[in-house]
Amino acid sequence: MIVAVIGSAACTPDEAAAAEAVGRLLGEAGAVLVCGGRGGVMVAACRGAKSAGGLTIGILPGMDASEANPWVDVPIATGLGEARNVIVVRSAEAVIAVGGAYGTLSEIAFALQWGKRVVGLGTWELARAGVPDRGIVRAKTPEEAVAEALGV
Amino acid sequence: MIVAVIGSAACTPDEAAAAEAVGRLLGEAGAVLVCGGRGGVMVAACRGAKSAGGLTIGILPGMDASEANPWVDVPIATGLGEARNVIVVRSAEAVIAVGGAYGTLSEIAFALQWGKRVVGLGTWELARAGVPDRGIVRAKTPEEAVAEALGV
Amino acid sequence: MIVAVIGSAACTPDEAAAAEAVGRLLGEAGAVLVCGGRGGVMVAACRGAKSAGGLTIGILPGMDASEANPWVDVPIATGLGEARNVIVVRSAEAVIAVGGAYGTLSEIAFALQWGKRVVGLGTWELARAGVPDRGIVRAKTPEEAVAEALGV
Amino acid sequence: MIVAVIGSAACTPDEAAAAEAVGRLLGEAGAVLVCGGRGGVMVAACRGAKSAGGLTIGILPGMDASEANPWVDVPIATGLGEARNVIVVRSAEAVIAVGGAYGTLSEIAFALQWGKRVVGLGTWELARAGVPDRGIVRAKTPEEAVAEALGV
Repeated sequence: MIVAVIGSAACTPDEAAAAEAVGRLLGEAGAVLVCGGRGGVMVAACRGAKSAGGLTIGILPGMDASEANPWVDVPIATGLGEARNVIVVRSAEAVIAVGGAYGTLSEIAFALQWGKRVVGLGTWELARAGVPDRGIVRAKTPEEAVAEALGV
Repeated sequence: MIVAVIGSAACTPDEAAAAEAVGRLLGEAGAVLVCGGRGGVMVAACRGAKSAGGLTIGILPGMDASEANPWVDVPIATGLGEARNVIVVRSAEAVIAVGGAYGTLSEIAFALQWGKRVVGLGTWELARAGVPDRGIVRAKTPEEAVAEALGV
Repeated sequence: MIVAVIGSAACTPDEAAAAEAVGRLLGEAGAVLVCGGRGGVMVAACRGAKSAGGLTIGILPGMDASEANPWVDVPIATGLGEARNVIVVRSAEAVIAVGGAYGTLSEIAFALQWGKRVVGLGTWELARAGVPDRGIVRAKTPEEAVAEALGV
Repeated sequence: MIVAVIGSAACTPDEAAAAEAVGRLLGEAGAVLVCGGRGGVMVAACRGAKSAGGLTIGILPGMDASEANPWVDVPIATGLGEARNVIVVRSAEAVIAVGGAYGTLSEIAFALQWGKRVVGLGTWELARAGVPDRGIVRAKTPEEAVAEALGV
């Protein structure tokens, strides 16, 4: 099973800790971790996954594999810029959002559009005309987030 | 000036009327209208623009120009699926969102990420940790939306 | 009808003259010209099209419309890098290649793969196991190239 | 090191045998194999790589991981159609072309444009004005092709 972990390259220490725990739990569960391959939430999640022996894939915006963080096993250089967000989401069966800014929001939107399970840890809240959108499954802990993403 | 009008292929009659007015006002102002080229808000906006002699560009998800609505002057078949949303936003200097579902949300997210002016007519409301995000400029009428988008 | 004119940003004076004539003839025929929006063959073709009152679309690799040449009416900034070559070809019903380096070769390849008419003016010659590939229609003059592309 | 193996989904038995040998040799060398994830040359190369314990990545044109061949370890569903060819090439440090039709030609073109090492086993021959292009390194055997790709 492939799970995407999404979140900002500029994240808080708490978000980094949560992302690392999410990555570790995914690695322990034998899931492949896909992410955007850069820093912040991405590097934390990759580090966590590698600490548990997991496989990590980084879908990079630029043309050069060297922009991947050191815990990416397979860097996929796309040269597509932020359009690579589309691929991060498409290649995953479920998505875990840890915090996140506008780039993460674009990924959440695509995942919801395609009917993928989206689990949020302190991420965006969406509403239309004052009515909250219930597309994102809210988790309180990394354990809960991973359990929801894996459907266990 | 190029302005994107974004919104759902499945929209309400009120949203269609608003999109048509937005398109007409953009056409009258001499702006080029870029959109996703399909139905709903997109066809309404294109029809409005053509009623005022404007130029309309449809960035299509599929490989065939024939999927464009009849008021698209220049169909750009991308074959990229929903990744074409990225191009709709990138090619525009400002974005007007009329209603919209998850696809529109992805476009709003990219536009905000790239620092483009995003004007909303009854579209998504965004928040983080209960704090509303102020990225989207709220308009109450098509006139207000177009004035905001054109910066006049 | 939309016709793509493809060729190198670094071209010879003869190629520029041929591209300009191709653009002019397309403009006179009322065809929309699509190209990569940059210099060399692209700027020459756009200048030719505008001299005949044609409409020109530039599908740009970068994120900024300002990288378009001055004869592009509608710059479509994609931010996709050379992956924008795919869109140049997909959006056209026929393709005219004037000279060209490896980037042009990628566009010829996609056009042939999708069964689009490809007309060559001094462009790549393809073979497999010593057997020439006949996919590219060879033209000797801009007039012949445009007539072949328009199917007249 | 990541090496792309490219070639047609419809290939001859000789091409399949060559692709399988290439895959096996890459797996033995510890290289990661990237390909388009489908049939023909792609499935043969993946089968070869797995027979040697290698890791295989399939960059898929569609939205569904299930379109990957059974020897793909990590299916990356892009939904980009043939634009995924760009990513197959970008993500690799070297490219081995086994036979191939127009899709393979597009990948060769991008690889040459980006200055990547391209090794051909019975693939396209390119020329301009009767002068052969020397961009593709010609190999006679899978062993030679892999040695050239790995630079050993």
